Amino acid sequence: MDRLSPPITVTVLTVSDRCSRGETTDTSGPGLQDICRDQLGATVIGTRCVPDEPADITEAIRNWALQGVCGGQHARVKPDLIITTGGTGLAPRDVTPEATASVLERRHPALLELARLRCYQITPRTFLSRGECGTLARSLIINLPGSVRGSSETLGAILDILPHAIETLRGDVQDDGRTDVTPTTGRVIQHHDKGGA
Amino acid sequence: MDRLSPPITVTVLTVSDRCSRGETTDTSGPGLQDICRDQLGATVIGTRCVPDEPADITEAIRNWALQGVCGGQHARVKPDLIITTGGTGLAPRDVTPEATASVLERRHPALLELARLRCYQITPRTFLSRGECGTLARSLIINLPGSVRGSSETLGAILDILPHAIETLRGDVQDDGRTDVTPTTGRVIQHHDKGGA
Amino acid sequence: MDRLSPPITVTVLTVSDRCSRGETTDTSGPGLQDICRDQLGATVIGTRCVPDEPADITEAIRNWALQGVCGGQHARVKPDLIITTGGTGLAPRDVTPEATASVLERRHPALLELARLRCYQITPRTFLSRGECGTLARSLIINLPGSVRGSSETLGAILDILPHAIETLRGDVQDDGRTDVTPTTGRVIQHHDKGGA
Repeated sequence: MDRLSPPITVTVLTVSDRCSRGETTDTSGPGLQDICRDQLGATVIGTRCVPDEPADITEAIRNWALQGVCGGQHARVKPDLIITTGGTGLAPRDVTPEATASVLERRHPALLELARLRCYQITPRTFLSRGECGTLARSLIINLPGSVRGSSETLGAILDILPHAIETLRGDVQDDGRTDVTPTTGRVIQHHDKGGA
Repeated sequence: MDRLSPPITVTVLTVSDRCSRGETTDTSGPGLQDICRDQLGATVIGTRCVPDEPADITEAIRNWALQGVCGGQHARVKPDLIITTGGTGLAPRDVTPEATASVLERRHPALLELARLRCYQITPRTFLSRGECGTLARSLIINLPGSVRGSSETLGAILDILPHAIETLRGDVQDDGRTDVTPTTGRVIQHHDKGGA
Repeated sequence: MDRLSPPITVTVLTVSDRCSRGETTDTSGPGLQDICRDQLGATVIGTRCVPDEPADITEAIRNWALQGVCGGQHARVKPDLIITTGGTGLAPRDVTPEATASVLERRHPALLELARLRCYQITPRTFLSRGECGTLARSLIINLPGSVRGSSETLGAILDILPHAIETLRGDVQDDGRTDVTPTTGRVIQHHDKGGA
Protein backbone atom coordinates (compact mmCIF):
# COMPACT_ATOMS: atom_id res chain seq x y z
CA MET A 1 0.00 0.00 0.00
CA ASP A 2 1.37 3.43 -0.96
CA ARG A 3 1.72 5.72 2.08
CA LEU A 4 1.27 9.40 1.52
CA SER A 5 3.43 12.13 2.97
CA PRO A 6 2.07 13.91 4.94
CA PRO A 7 0.02 10.95 6.19
CA ILE A 8 -3.66 10.72 5.31
CA THR A 9 -5.85 12.37 7.95
CA VAL A 10 -9.10 10.60 8.79
CA THR A 11 -12.23 11.21 10.83
CA VAL A 12 -14.75 8.48 11.59
CA LEU A 13 -18.45 9.15 12.12
CA THR A 14 -20.56 6.41 13.67
CA VAL A 15 -24.24 6.84 12.79
CA SER A 16 -26.41 4.82 15.17
CA ASP A 17 -29.42 5.65 17.29
CA ARG A 18 -28.54 3.02 19.85
CA CYS A 19 -24.83 3.81 20.09
CA SER A 20 -25.62 7.50 20.48
CA ARG A 21 -27.97 6.68 23.38
CA GLY A 22 -25.38 4.45 25.00
CA GLU A 23 -27.52 1.33 24.56
CA THR A 24 -24.79 -0.53 22.77
CA THR A 25 -21.08 -0.18 22.20
CA ASP A 26 -19.71 0.93 18.87
CA THR A 27 -17.24 -1.63 17.58
CA SER A 28 -17.42 -0.74 13.88
CA GLY A 29 -15.95 2.75 14.33
CA PRO A 30 -12.89 1.60 16.29
CA GLY A 31 -12.37 -1.25 13.81
CA LEU A 32 -12.27 1.22 10.92
CA GLN A 33 -9.80 3.42 12.81
CA ASP A 34 -7.48 0.45 13.19
CA ILE A 35 -7.65 -0.35 9.49
CA CYS A 36 -6.84 3.26 8.58
CA ARG A 37 -3.86 3.40 10.95
CA ASP A 38 -2.47 -0.04 10.22
CA GLN A 39 -3.05 -0.31 6.50
CA LEU A 40 -3.01 3.28 5.24
CA GLY A 41 -0.53 4.72 7.76
CA ALA A 42 -3.23 7.31 8.42
CA THR A 43 -3.69 9.60 11.40
CA VAL A 44 -7.16 9.49 12.95
CA ILE A 45 -7.83 13.10 13.92
CA GLY A 46 -11.43 12.84 15.10
CA THR A 47 -14.34 10.53 15.86
CA ARG A 48 -17.98 11.14 16.69
CA CYS A 49 -21.18 9.22 17.21
CA VAL A 50 -24.54 10.68 16.14
CA PRO A 51 -28.09 9.31 15.93
CA ASP A 52 -29.75 8.47 12.59
CA GLU A 53 -30.84 12.08 12.10
CA PRO A 54 -30.04 13.92 8.86
CA ALA A 55 -29.25 17.19 10.66
CA ASP A 56 -26.71 15.54 12.96
CA ILE A 57 -25.04 13.69 10.12
CA THR A 58 -24.74 16.71 7.83
CA GLU A 59 -23.51 18.95 10.65
CA ALA A 60 -20.73 16.52 11.56
CA ILE A 61 -19.55 16.09 7.96
CA ARG A 62 -19.75 19.81 7.15
CA ASN A 63 -17.92 20.75 10.33
CA TRP A 64 -15.04 18.38 9.66
CA ALA A 65 -14.71 19.17 5.94
CA LEU A 66 -15.08 22.95 6.23
CA GLN A 67 -13.74 23.82 9.71
CA GLY A 68 -11.40 20.93 10.38
CA VAL A 69 -10.35 19.57 13.74
CA CYS A 70 -8.36 21.41 16.40
CA GLY A 71 -4.81 20.12 16.04
CA GLY A 72 -3.22 21.82 19.05
CA GLN A 73 -1.58 25.24 19.21
CA HIS A 74 -4.61 26.86 17.52
CA ALA A 75 -3.88 24.96 14.31
CA ARG A 76 -6.81 23.26 12.62
CA VAL A 77 -6.34 20.11 10.57
CA LYS A 78 -8.80 19.03 7.89
CA PRO A 79 -9.48 15.37 7.16
CA ASP A 80 -8.49 13.96 3.78
CA LEU A 81 -11.00 11.21 4.42
CA ILE A 82 -14.30 11.21 6.30
CA ILE A 83 -15.64 7.70 6.87
CA THR A 84 -19.15 7.09 8.13
CA THR A 85 -20.45 3.75 9.40
CA GLY A 86 -24.13 2.90 9.75
CA GLY A 87 -27.47 3.93 8.32
CA THR A 88 -26.82 2.85 4.72
CA GLY A 89 -29.41 0.08 4.42
CA LEU A 90 -33.15 0.03 3.81
CA ALA A 91 -34.33 0.13 7.44
CA PRO A 92 -36.87 2.92 7.99
CA ARG A 93 -34.37 5.07 9.96
CA ASP A 94 -31.47 4.60 7.51
CA VAL A 95 -30.78 8.06 6.08
CA THR A 96 -27.00 8.38 6.00
CA PRO A 97 -26.74 8.33 2.16
CA GLU A 98 -29.42 11.03 1.78
CA ALA A 99 -27.81 13.23 4.44
CA THR A 100 -24.40 12.75 2.89
CA ALA A 101 -25.58 13.42 -0.67
CA SER A 102 -27.07 16.70 0.51
CA VAL A 103 -23.64 18.09 1.45
CA LEU A 104 -21.49 16.66 -1.35
CA GLU A 105 -20.09 19.06 -3.92
CA ARG A 106 -18.94 16.28 -6.24
CA ARG A 107 -20.27 12.72 -6.27
CA HIS A 108 -18.04 9.71 -6.81
CA PRO A 109 -20.31 6.64 -6.85
CA ALA A 110 -17.80 4.50 -8.77
CA LEU A 111 -15.56 4.13 -5.72
CA LEU A 112 -18.23 2.17 -3.83
CA GLU A 113 -19.16 0.40 -7.05
CA LEU A 114 -15.62 -1.00 -7.01
CA ALA A 115 -16.09 -2.01 -3.37
CA ARG A 116 -19.30 -3.86 -4.21
CA LEU A 117 -17.72 -5.60 -7.19
CA ARG A 118 -14.90 -6.85 -5.00
CA CYS A 119 -17.05 -7.71 -1.95
CA TYR A 120 -19.49 -9.62 -4.15
CA GLN A 121 -17.29 -12.68 -3.85
CA ILE A 122 -17.81 -12.57 -0.09
CA THR A 123 -21.56 -11.85 -0.17
CA PRO A 124 -24.11 -10.43 -2.62
CA ARG A 125 -25.55 -8.60 0.39
CA THR A 126 -22.93 -5.93 -0.17
CA PHE A 127 -25.39 -4.65 -2.81
CA LEU A 128 -27.92 -3.89 -0.05
CA SER A 129 -25.81 -0.98 1.15
CA ARG A 130 -26.87 2.32 -0.39
CA GLY A 131 -23.75 4.25 0.62
CA GLU A 132 -22.79 7.48 -1.14
CA CYS A 133 -19.29 8.70 -1.89
CA GLY A 134 -17.99 12.07 -2.98
CA THR A 135 -16.17 15.21 -1.98
CA LEU A 136 -16.80 18.35 0.05
CA ALA A 137 -13.97 20.90 -0.01
CA ARG A 138 -10.79 18.78 0.11
CA SER A 139 -12.35 15.83 1.97
CA LEU A 140 -13.38 12.51 0.45
CA ILE A 141 -16.48 11.20 2.20
CA ILE A 142 -17.36 7.50 2.12
CA ASN A 143 -20.49 5.88 3.62
CA LEU A 144 -19.86 2.37 4.94
CA PRO A 145 -22.40 -0.11 6.35
CA GLY A 146 -22.92 -0.30 10.11
CA SER A 147 -21.91 -3.88 10.77
CA VAL A 148 -18.35 -4.67 11.82
CA ARG A 149 -17.95 -7.14 8.98
CA GLY A 150 -19.68 -5.08 6.30
CA SER A 151 -17.84 -1.87 7.14
CA SER A 152 -14.37 -3.39 7.37
CA GLU A 153 -14.81 -5.51 4.24
CA THR A 154 -16.06 -2.56 2.24
CA LEU A 155 -13.23 -0.27 3.34
CA GLY A 156 -10.72 -3.08 2.86
CA ALA A 157 -11.89 -3.53 -0.72
CA ILE A 158 -10.80 -0.04 -1.81
CA LEU A 159 -7.70 0.53 0.34
CA ASP A 160 -5.41 0.07 -2.65
CA ILE A 161 -6.78 3.02 -4.60
CA LEU A 162 -7.55 5.39 -1.73
CA PRO A 163 -4.03 6.89 -1.53
CA HIS A 164 -4.09 7.82 -5.20
CA ALA A 165 -7.61 9.24 -4.89
CA ILE A 166 -6.56 11.40 -1.94
CA GLU A 167 -3.31 12.50 -3.59
CA THR A 168 -5.39 13.73 -6.53
CA LEU A 169 -7.93 15.45 -4.29
CA ARG A 170 -5.09 17.25 -2.47
CA GLY A 171 -4.03 18.62 -5.86
CA ASP A 172 -0.62 16.93 -5.76
CA VAL A 173 -1.19 14.88 -8.89
CA GLN A 174 -2.87 15.55 -12.17
CA ASP A 175 -4.28 12.66 -14.07
CA ASP A 176 -4.76 14.10 -17.49
CA GLY A 177 -1.81 12.40 -19.09
CA ARG A 178 -0.29 15.66 -20.20
CA THR A 179 3.14 16.88 -19.11
CA ASP A 180 4.19 20.40 -18.29
CA VAL A 181 5.83 22.67 -15.77
CA THR A 182 3.54 24.97 -13.83
CA PRO A 183 4.60 28.44 -15.00
CA THR A 184 3.88 30.19 -11.71
CA THR A 185 5.84 27.85 -9.44
CA GLY A 186 8.30 26.17 -11.77
CA ARG A 187 7.37 22.99 -9.91
CA VAL A 188 7.19 19.90 -12.06
CA ILE A 189 3.75 18.43 -11.79
CA GLN A 190 3.62 14.66 -11.52
CA HIS A 191 1.66 13.07 -14.27
CA HIS A 192 0.40 9.55 -14.36
CA ASP A 193 -1.03 7.82 -17.38
CA LYS A 194 -2.18 4.50 -16.11
CA GLY A 195 -5.54 4.38 -17.76
CA GLY A 196 -7.37 5.74 -14.75
CA ALA A 197 -9.23 8.99 -14.31
CA MET B 1 -35.61 -18.67 -1.65
CA ASP B 2 -36.61 -17.31 1.78
CA ARG B 3 -40.35 -16.68 2.00
CA LEU B 4 -41.51 -13.88 4.23
CA SER B 5 -44.43 -14.05 6.62
CA PRO B 6 -46.71 -12.26 5.95
CA PRO B 7 -46.07 -12.84 2.24
CA ILE B 8 -44.54 -10.08 0.14
CA THR B 9 -47.20 -7.90 -1.46
CA VAL B 10 -46.50 -6.75 -5.01
CA THR B 11 -48.01 -4.41 -7.57
CA VAL B 12 -46.93 -4.39 -11.22
CA LEU B 13 -47.05 -1.31 -13.40
CA THR B 14 -46.76 -1.77 -17.16
CA VAL B 15 -45.53 1.41 -18.84
CA SER B 16 -46.27 1.31 -22.56
CA ASP B 17 -47.96 3.69 -24.96
CA ARG B 18 -49.12 0.87 -27.19
CA CYS B 19 -50.36 -1.44 -24.45
CA SER B 20 -52.27 1.43 -22.87
CA ARG B 21 -53.97 2.12 -26.21
CA GLY B 22 -54.80 -1.56 -26.66
CA GLU B 23 -52.60 -1.85 -29.74
CA THR B 24 -50.67 -4.74 -28.32
CA THR B 25 -51.01 -7.20 -25.46
CA ASP B 26 -48.88 -6.89 -22.37
CA THR B 27 -47.00 -10.11 -21.79
CA SER B 28 -44.18 -8.71 -19.63
CA GLY B 29 -46.44 -7.67 -16.75
CA PRO B 30 -48.16 -11.06 -16.42
CA GLY B 31 -44.78 -12.80 -16.68
CA LEU B 32 -43.45 -10.76 -13.77
CA GLN B 33 -46.55 -11.55 -11.72
CA ASP B 34 -45.93 -15.27 -12.23
CA ILE B 35 -42.30 -14.95 -11.12
CA CYS B 36 -43.32 -13.08 -7.97
CA ARG B 37 -45.97 -15.66 -7.07
CA ASP B 38 -44.00 -18.76 -7.95
CA GLN B 39 -40.54 -17.80 -6.79
CA LEU B 40 -41.12 -15.30 -3.98
CA GLY B 41 -44.41 -16.70 -2.66
CA ALA B 42 -45.71 -13.16 -3.09
CA THR B 43 -49.29 -11.92 -3.37
CA VAL B 44 -49.94 -9.67 -6.36
CA ILE B 45 -52.37 -7.06 -5.02
CA GLY B 46 -52.60 -4.76 -8.02
CA THR B 47 -51.69 -4.20 -11.65
CA ARG B 48 -52.04 -1.24 -13.99
CA CYS B 49 -51.03 -0.17 -17.46
CA VAL B 50 -50.16 3.46 -18.21
CA PRO B 51 -48.71 5.28 -21.23
CA ASP B 52 -45.14 6.62 -21.26
CA GLU B 53 -46.20 9.82 -19.54
CA PRO B 54 -44.39 11.02 -16.40
CA ALA B 55 -47.60 12.17 -14.69
CA ASP B 56 -49.29 8.79 -15.15
CA ILE B 57 -46.27 6.89 -13.90
CA THR B 58 -45.74 9.02 -10.80
CA GLU B 59 -49.44 9.01 -9.96
CA ALA B 60 -49.59 5.21 -10.08
CA ILE B 61 -46.49 4.74 -7.92
CA ARG B 62 -47.48 7.40 -5.40
CA ASN B 63 -50.99 6.03 -5.11
CA TRP B 64 -49.83 2.50 -4.42
CA ALA B 65 -47.04 3.45 -2.00
CA LEU B 66 -48.96 6.08 -0.06
CA GLN B 67 -52.63 4.98 -0.27
CA GLY B 68 -52.29 1.27 -0.85
CA VAL B 69 -54.74 -1.03 -2.57
CA CYS B 70 -58.26 -1.83 -1.40
CA GLY B 71 -58.00 -5.24 0.26
CA GLY B 72 -61.69 -5.88 0.93
CA GLN B 73 -63.69 -4.95 4.06
CA HIS B 74 -62.42 -1.37 3.86
CA ALA B 75 -58.86 -2.53 4.65
CA ARG B 76 -56.12 -1.11 2.49
CA VAL B 77 -52.96 -3.08 1.79
CA LYS B 78 -49.71 -1.44 0.79
CA PRO B 79 -47.26 -3.12 -1.57
CA ASP B 80 -43.83 -4.12 -0.24
CA LEU B 81 -42.66 -4.11 -3.82
CA ILE B 82 -43.70 -2.00 -6.80
CA ILE B 83 -42.34 -3.34 -10.07
CA THR B 84 -42.51 -1.36 -13.28
CA THR B 85 -41.84 -2.75 -16.75
CA GLY B 86 -41.10 -0.60 -19.78
CA GLY B 87 -39.74 2.82 -20.63
CA THR B 88 -36.23 2.32 -19.21
CA GLY B 89 -34.24 2.54 -22.43
CA LEU B 90 -33.02 5.41 -24.60
CA ALA B 91 -36.01 5.68 -26.95
CA PRO B 92 -37.33 9.25 -27.11
CA ARG B 93 -40.47 8.40 -25.10
CA ASP B 94 -38.64 6.38 -22.40
CA VAL B 95 -39.11 8.35 -19.18
CA THR B 96 -39.88 5.74 -16.52
CA PRO B 97 -36.58 6.24 -14.63
CA GLU B 98 -37.02 10.02 -14.51
CA ALA B 99 -40.63 9.74 -13.35
CA THR B 100 -39.66 7.16 -10.74
CA ALA B 101 -36.69 9.15 -9.44
CA SER B 102 -38.95 12.14 -8.93
CA VAL B 103 -41.03 10.27 -6.32
CA LEU B 104 -38.31 8.29 -4.53
CA GLU B 105 -37.46 9.25 -0.97
CA ARG B 106 -34.35 7.07 -0.88
CA ARG B 107 -32.45 5.79 -3.90
CA HIS B 108 -30.97 2.32 -4.08
CA PRO B 109 -29.11 2.06 -7.41
CA ALA B 110 -26.92 -0.81 -6.22
CA LEU B 111 -29.78 -3.32 -6.42
CA LEU B 112 -30.04 -2.93 -10.19
CA GLU B 113 -26.25 -2.75 -10.40
CA LEU B 114 -26.26 -6.30 -9.02
CA ALA B 115 -28.86 -7.29 -11.61
CA ARG B 116 -26.70 -5.89 -14.41
CA LEU B 117 -23.59 -7.62 -13.09
CA ARG B 118 -25.40 -10.94 -13.08
CA CYS B 119 -27.27 -10.46 -16.38
CA TYR B 120 -24.05 -9.44 -18.10
CA GLN B 121 -23.28 -13.09 -18.70
CA ILE B 122 -26.51 -13.33 -20.70
CA THR B 123 -26.09 -10.07 -22.63
CA PRO B 124 -24.18 -6.80 -22.27
CA ARG B 125 -27.39 -5.12 -23.44
CA THR B 126 -28.61 -5.27 -19.87
CA PHE B 127 -26.48 -2.11 -19.46
CA LEU B 128 -28.77 -0.26 -21.88
CA SER B 129 -31.53 -0.22 -19.29
CA ARG B 130 -31.54 2.97 -17.23
CA GLY B 131 -33.88 1.69 -14.49
CA GLU B 132 -34.01 3.36 -11.09
CA CYS B 133 -34.54 1.67 -7.76
CA GLY B 134 -35.40 3.04 -4.34
CA THR B 135 -38.05 3.51 -1.72
CA LEU B 136 -41.16 5.60 -1.12
CA ALA B 137 -42.79 5.11 2.27
CA ARG B 138 -42.48 1.37 2.93
CA SER B 139 -42.46 0.30 -0.73
CA LEU B 140 -39.41 -0.76 -2.71
CA ILE B 141 -39.75 0.40 -6.32
CA ILE B 142 -37.82 -1.29 -9.12
CA ASN B 143 -37.81 -0.28 -12.80
CA LEU B 144 -37.43 -3.22 -15.17
CA PRO B 145 -37.05 -3.18 -18.97
CA GLY B 146 -40.14 -3.62 -21.13
CA SER B 147 -39.23 -6.78 -23.00
CA VAL B 148 -40.39 -10.16 -21.70
CA ARG B 149 -36.87 -11.48 -21.65
CA GLY B 150 -35.19 -8.37 -20.25
CA SER B 151 -37.73 -7.87 -17.48
CA SER B 152 -37.84 -11.47 -16.32
CA GLU B 153 -34.06 -11.90 -16.45
CA THR B 154 -33.48 -8.69 -14.52
CA LEU B 155 -35.99 -9.57 -11.82
CA GLY B 156 -34.74 -13.13 -11.70
CA ALA B 157 -31.20 -11.88 -11.08
CA ILE B 158 -32.07 -10.27 -7.74
CA LEU B 159 -34.76 -12.63 -6.39
CA ASP B 160 -32.37 -14.08 -3.83
CA ILE B 161 -31.79 -10.80 -2.00
CA LEU B 162 -35.24 -9.24 -2.37
CA PRO B 163 -36.75 -10.96 0.71
CA HIS B 164 -33.99 -9.63 2.96
CA ALA B 165 -34.29 -6.16 1.44
CA ILE B 166 -38.03 -6.12 2.05
CA GLU B 167 -37.68 -7.53 5.58
CA THR B 168 -35.34 -4.64 6.36
CA LEU B 169 -37.63 -2.07 4.76
CA ARG B 170 -40.54 -3.38 6.84
CA GLY B 171 -38.46 -2.68 9.93
CA ASP B 172 -38.34 -6.32 11.02
CA VAL B 173 -34.58 -6.62 10.85
CA GLN B 174 -31.75 -4.33 11.69
CA ASP B 175 -28.52 -4.76 9.90
CA ASP B 176 -26.11 -2.84 12.01
CA GLY B 177 -24.45 -5.87 13.57
CA ARG B 178 -25.26 -4.75 17.08
CA THR B 179 -27.40 -6.76 19.51
CA ASP B 180 -29.91 -5.47 21.97
CA VAL B 181 -33.43 -5.79 23.32
CA THR B 182 -35.83 -2.99 22.42
CA PRO B 183 -36.61 -1.37 25.80
CA THR B 184 -40.17 -0.43 24.90
CA THR B 185 -41.36 -3.81 23.68
CA GLY B 186 -38.99 -6.28 25.24
CA ARG B 187 -38.94 -7.90 21.82
CA VAL B 188 -35.59 -9.25 20.74
CA ILE B 189 -34.58 -7.59 17.53
CA GLN B 190 -33.03 -9.88 14.97
CA HIS B 191 -29.54 -8.84 14.02
CA HIS B 192 -27.62 -10.13 11.07
CA ASP B 193 -23.94 -9.61 10.47
CA LYS B 194 -23.31 -11.10 7.13
CA GLY B 195 -21.22 -8.37 5.68
CA GLY B 196 -24.15 -6.69 3.98
CA ALA B 197 -25.68 -3.32 4.58
CA MET C 1 -19.21 -3.64 -35.14
CA ASP C 2 -22.64 -2.68 -36.53
CA ARG C 3 -22.45 0.48 -38.66
CA LEU C 4 -25.47 2.71 -38.69
CA SER C 5 -26.96 4.34 -41.75
CA PRO C 6 -26.80 7.29 -41.83
CA PRO C 7 -23.41 7.15 -40.07
CA ILE C 8 -23.15 8.16 -36.42
CA THR C 9 -22.31 11.85 -36.05
CA VAL C 10 -19.86 12.73 -33.27
CA THR C 11 -18.48 15.83 -31.61
CA VAL C 12 -15.50 15.74 -29.25
CA LEU C 13 -15.02 18.21 -26.41
CA THR C 14 -11.60 18.40 -24.78
CA VAL C 15 -11.82 19.83 -21.27
CA SER C 16 -8.43 21.02 -20.10
CA ASP C 17 -7.15 24.26 -18.60
CA ARG C 18 -3.72 23.73 -20.07
CA CYS C 19 -4.79 22.68 -23.53
CA SER C 20 -7.17 25.63 -23.72
CA ARG C 21 -4.28 27.99 -22.86
CA GLY C 22 -2.06 26.33 -25.43
CA GLU C 23 0.39 25.12 -22.80
CA THR C 24 0.15 21.56 -23.98
CA THR C 25 -1.12 19.70 -27.01
CA ASP C 26 -4.32 17.71 -26.88
CA THR C 27 -3.66 14.14 -27.93
CA SER C 28 -6.67 12.52 -26.26
CA GLY C 29 -9.26 14.32 -28.38
CA PRO C 30 -7.68 13.40 -31.74
CA GLY C 31 -7.24 9.81 -30.51
CA LEU C 32 -10.94 9.56 -29.74
CA GLN C 33 -11.81 10.98 -33.16
CA ASP C 34 -9.75 8.24 -34.79
CA ILE C 35 -11.51 5.53 -32.80
CA CYS C 36 -14.93 6.89 -33.76
CA ARG C 37 -14.05 7.06 -37.44
CA ASP C 38 -12.18 3.77 -37.67
CA GLN C 39 -14.26 1.58 -35.41
CA LEU C 40 -17.75 3.09 -35.54
CA GLY C 41 -17.65 4.39 -39.11
CA ALA C 42 -18.68 7.70 -37.59
CA THR C 43 -18.40 11.21 -38.98
CA VAL C 44 -16.72 13.71 -36.65
CA ILE C 45 -18.68 16.92 -37.20
CA GLY C 46 -17.11 19.13 -34.56
CA THR C 47 -14.37 19.49 -31.96
CA ARG C 48 -13.66 22.09 -29.29
CA CYS C 49 -11.32 22.67 -26.39
CA VAL C 50 -12.50 24.48 -23.26
CA PRO C 51 -10.98 25.13 -19.82
CA ASP C 52 -12.21 23.31 -16.69
CA GLU C 53 -15.02 25.81 -16.21
CA PRO C 54 -18.61 24.64 -15.74
CA ALA C 55 -20.05 27.43 -17.88
CA ASP C 56 -17.78 26.64 -20.84
CA ILE C 57 -18.53 22.93 -20.64
CA THR C 58 -22.30 23.30 -20.42
CA GLU C 59 -22.36 25.90 -23.19
CA ALA C 60 -20.47 23.62 -25.55
CA ILE C 61 -22.68 20.59 -24.84
CA ARG C 62 -25.93 22.55 -25.00
CA ASN C 63 -24.92 24.24 -28.22
CA TRP C 64 -24.07 20.99 -29.98
CA ALA C 65 -27.12 19.05 -28.72
CA LEU C 66 -29.68 21.81 -29.23
CA GLN C 67 -28.34 23.90 -32.15
CA GLY C 68 -26.17 21.37 -33.94
CA VAL C 69 -23.20 22.08 -36.16
CA CYS C 70 -23.23 23.96 -39.45
CA GLY C 71 -23.15 21.27 -42.13
CA GLY C 72 -22.79 23.48 -45.20
CA GLN C 73 -25.54 24.97 -47.39
CA HIS C 74 -27.29 26.34 -44.27
CA ALA C 75 -28.04 22.82 -43.02
CA ARG C 76 -27.32 22.09 -39.41
CA VAL C 77 -26.35 18.60 -38.26
CA LYS C 78 -26.80 17.41 -34.70
CA PRO C 79 -24.41 14.95 -33.11
CA ASP C 80 -25.71 11.50 -32.14
CA LEU C 81 -22.80 11.32 -29.73
CA ILE C 82 -21.00 14.01 -27.73
CA ILE C 83 -17.79 12.76 -26.18
CA THR C 84 -15.90 14.76 -23.58
CA THR C 85 -12.36 14.03 -22.41
CA GLY C 86 -10.85 15.41 -19.21
CA GLY C 87 -11.95 16.73 -15.85
CA THR C 88 -13.56 13.53 -14.57
CA GLY C 89 -11.23 12.79 -11.66
CA LEU C 90 -10.90 14.12 -8.12
CA ALA C 91 -8.47 16.98 -8.80
CA PRO C 92 -9.74 20.27 -7.39
CA ARG C 93 -10.53 21.68 -10.84
CA ASP C 94 -12.26 18.52 -12.15
CA VAL C 95 -15.89 19.52 -12.73
CA THR C 96 -16.84 17.92 -16.06
CA PRO C 97 -19.31 15.42 -14.50
CA GLU C 98 -21.09 18.13 -12.50
CA ALA C 99 -21.32 20.43 -15.53
CA THR C 100 -22.56 17.57 -17.70
CA ALA C 101 -25.13 16.37 -15.16
CA SER C 102 -26.56 19.88 -15.01
CA VAL C 103 -27.59 19.75 -18.69
CA LEU C 104 -28.70 16.13 -19.00
CA GLU C 105 -32.39 15.41 -19.49
CA ARG C 106 -32.00 11.70 -18.88
CA ARG C 107 -29.13 10.02 -17.07
CA HIS C 108 -27.62 6.74 -18.17
CA PRO C 109 -24.94 5.81 -15.61
CA ALA C 110 -25.02 2.10 -16.51
CA LEU C 111 -23.19 2.69 -19.77
CA LEU C 112 -20.05 3.84 -17.96
CA GLU C 113 -20.62 1.16 -15.33
CA LEU C 114 -20.17 -1.35 -18.16
CA ALA C 115 -17.01 0.47 -19.24
CA ARG C 116 -15.59 0.27 -15.71
CA LEU C 117 -16.48 -3.41 -15.38
CA ARG C 118 -14.64 -4.17 -18.60
CA CYS C 119 -11.68 -1.84 -17.99
CA TYR C 120 -11.23 -3.28 -14.49
CA GLN C 121 -9.14 -6.07 -15.97
CA ILE C 122 -6.72 -3.44 -17.27
CA THR C 123 -6.64 -1.30 -14.12
CA PRO C 124 -8.81 -0.71 -11.04
CA ARG C 125 -8.01 2.98 -11.53
CA THR C 126 -10.82 3.12 -14.05
CA PHE C 127 -13.02 3.46 -10.93
CA LEU C 128 -11.37 6.81 -10.15
CA SER C 129 -13.16 8.43 -13.07
CA ARG C 130 -16.43 10.07 -12.07
CA GLY C 131 -17.78 10.49 -15.60
CA GLU C 132 -21.49 10.99 -16.24
CA CYS C 133 -23.49 9.68 -19.16
CA GLY C 134 -26.95 10.55 -20.42
CA THR C 135 -28.97 12.33 -23.05
CA LEU C 136 -29.90 15.88 -24.02
CA ALA C 137 -32.35 16.14 -26.95
CA ARG C 138 -31.23 13.40 -29.35
CA SER C 139 -27.57 13.39 -28.30
CA LEU C 140 -25.90 10.82 -26.09
CA ILE C 141 -23.24 12.49 -23.94
CA ILE C 142 -20.37 10.50 -22.45
CA ASN C 143 -17.65 11.83 -20.14
CA LEU C 144 -14.30 10.13 -20.61
CA PRO C 145 -11.09 10.59 -18.60
CA GLY C 146 -8.44 13.03 -19.82
CA SER C 147 -5.53 10.69 -20.34
CA VAL C 148 -4.90 9.18 -23.76
CA ARG C 149 -4.94 5.68 -22.34
CA GLY C 150 -7.89 6.14 -20.00
CA SER C 151 -10.07 7.83 -22.57
CA SER C 152 -9.40 5.40 -25.42
CA GLU C 153 -9.74 2.32 -23.20
CA THR C 154 -13.03 3.56 -21.73
CA LEU C 155 -14.52 4.38 -25.13
CA GLY C 156 -13.18 1.13 -26.57
CA ALA C 157 -14.93 -0.82 -23.82
CA ILE C 158 -18.41 0.23 -24.93
CA LEU C 159 -18.01 0.48 -28.71
CA ASP C 160 -19.99 -2.72 -29.24
CA ILE C 161 -23.20 -1.41 -27.70
CA LEU C 162 -22.99 2.23 -28.79
CA PRO C 163 -24.60 1.68 -32.22
CA HIS C 164 -27.65 0.03 -30.67
CA ALA C 165 -27.89 2.76 -28.02
CA ILE C 166 -27.77 5.46 -30.69
CA GLU C 167 -30.25 3.64 -32.95
CA THR C 168 -32.68 3.58 -30.05
CA LEU C 169 -32.07 7.23 -29.19
CA ARG C 170 -32.75 8.18 -32.82
CA GLY C 171 -36.13 6.49 -32.46
CA ASP C 172 -35.41 3.90 -35.14
CA VAL C 173 -35.81 0.91 -32.83
CA GLN C 174 -38.12 0.12 -30.00
CA ASP C 175 -36.92 -2.21 -27.36
CA ASP C 176 -40.07 -3.20 -25.62
CA GLY C 177 -40.30 -6.67 -27.08
CA ARG C 178 -43.73 -6.07 -28.52
CA THR C 179 -44.56 -6.29 -32.23
CA ASP C 180 -46.85 -4.10 -34.21
CA VAL C 181 -47.26 -2.01 -37.32
CA THR C 182 -47.34 1.73 -36.84
CA PRO C 183 -50.86 2.70 -37.89
CA THR C 184 -49.94 6.09 -39.28
CA THR C 185 -47.10 5.00 -41.53
CA GLY C 186 -47.76 1.34 -42.13
CA ARG C 187 -44.02 0.94 -41.55
CA VAL C 188 -43.05 -2.20 -39.67
CA ILE C 189 -41.17 -1.21 -36.58
CA GLN C 190 -38.12 -3.29 -35.81
CA HIS C 191 -38.37 -4.97 -32.46
CA HIS C 192 -35.56 -6.66 -30.63
CA ASP C 193 -35.96 -8.93 -27.67
CA LYS C 194 -32.47 -9.68 -26.61
CA GLY C 195 -32.87 -9.20 -22.93
CA GLY C 196 -31.64 -5.61 -22.97
CA ALA C 197 -33.47 -2.41 -22.20
